[in-house]
Amino acid sequence: MTEELTRDAFLGGKLHLLQPVSGYRAGVDPVLLAASVKAVAGQSVLDLGCGTGAAALCLGARVPGLKLAGVELQPGYAALARRNGGETFEVFTGDVADLPAGLRQRQFDHVIANPPYFDPRRRRAGRDEGRETALGESVPLEKWVRVAGRRLAPKGYAHFIHRIERLPDILGALDHDMGSVEVLPLTAREGRRPELAILRARKSGRGAFVLHAPLVLHEGARHTKDADSYVPAVRAVLRDGAALTF
Amino acid sequence: MTEELTRDAFLGGKLHLLQPVSGYRAGVDPVLLAASVKAVAGQSVLDLGCGTGAAALCLGARVPGLKLAGVELQPGYAALARRNGGETFEVFTGDVADLPAGLRQRQFDHVIANPPYFDPRRRRAGRDEGRETALGESVPLEKWVRVAGRRLAPKGYAHFIHRIERLPDILGALDHDMGSVEVLPLTAREGRRPELAILRARKSGRGAFVLHAPLVLHEGARHTKDADSYVPAVRAVLRDGAALTF
Repeated sequence: MTEELTRDAFLGGKLHLLQPVSGYRAGVDPVLLAASVKAVAGQSVLDLGCGTGAAALCLGARVPGLKLAGVELQPGYAALARRNGGETFEVFTGDVADLPAGLRQRQFDHVIANPPYFDPRRRRAGRDEGRETALGESVPLEKWVRVAGRRLAPKGYAHFIHRIERLPDILGALDHDMGSVEVLPLTAREGRRPELAILRARKSGRGAFVLHAPLVLHEGARHTKDADSYVPAVRAVLRDGAALTF
Repeated sequence: MTEELTRDAFLGGKLHLLQPVSGYRAGVDPVLLAASVKAVAGQSVLDLGCGTGAAALCLGARVPGLKLAGVELQPGYAALARRNGGETFEVFTGDVADLPAGLRQRQFDHVIANPPYFDPRRRRAGRDEGRETALGESVPLEKWVRVAGRRLAPKGYAHFIHRIERLPDILGALDHDMGSVEVLPLTAREGRRPELAILRARKSGRGAFVLHAPLVLHEGARHTKDADSYVPAVRAVLRDGAALTF
């Protein structure tokens, strides 16, 4: 990670994050992930692989009174997460596959994760090592899913955002005590094949699997450069810090 | 099964099927299933749980020169399938979970199945025993999926239609040699939660999982009694015997 940082506004300025200029930088994915969590004041949240804290801190900005914790493998990102979250965000430096002792015995009402999207075995390494680690799957996705389930309190919820093509792997990795699975596909444009999905699962949930109608992110059939093309519900999430209800 | 039969037109009259008046009667699901199979003349097709033959015979009506086989547990339905298909359709009476010897050693270019939608353990029995057997899951869904995979020739395709809520079970039951999985959700109306899906998987396929944009079946936001409300692509399948491409 380079030492150069930017201070970036999220949720229309409700939240600012220090991020490395050339490392991993949060896009809309952790923001949408955070918006989908139905947390209420007093509940606890664990962000697996929290990076600089985008998902956890977006959630904290929307829902006051949460107890936020995160774990991040890379010390540089963990340090930034601490600076970004201050006293409201308890950040551990450590491996999702081998959680720090301070987390291993705890349970959370919510676990959220935006795991690395790309399998390093299938991909040439990029130039920024920190970015590569953040995007590359050094810990298998299945491990993230299992760790999330195990850190949940009874009736707690896990939320993941990931590429659609890994949906079978996530479903297959859910322990048997995880149920009430809901998938919200995210698609760039109406009628397009969705590329990402938010997956919600509940510890001890017994509801049937639900596939929601895709959330279309952008209006219109194609990209037009000169305007923010997000549909109103997505714009409300990104610009006003609204919840994403499904 | 009652002895009373009707002779019903499918694909705009390209196909007629004898069906029991009060037993299991094919709806649009096996027609959509058949329309999604990219079969070509000379290939072989096995329809698991073929009932009176709707799926296999719809496929045969669209693609000439296929070698069609089916297996059906209930002798009455199997007998109707033989009458419906004549010499073009080789029908075995037997259990999907314990295939007749005549099928067990064979491989097919395509296996299709519209398995029972309801788990009898969770459902009160209805009045018609044949209909109950056709709709109720006496053989576990996972078994259907595994049998389909094992009867496929290398590079062959399996197609299933089932309720969305069983999608994780189908995905989980696919053997490791099945890949290139594609799911087409079917939704009654634009923006509604899809309730059914067609799933395609390929023996030895190595492609990534794909979730297609849902196929919307009906036009408009609600049902209007006095018109056939199917969208053009679906009407073309049901009324003209067109393929359903995805």
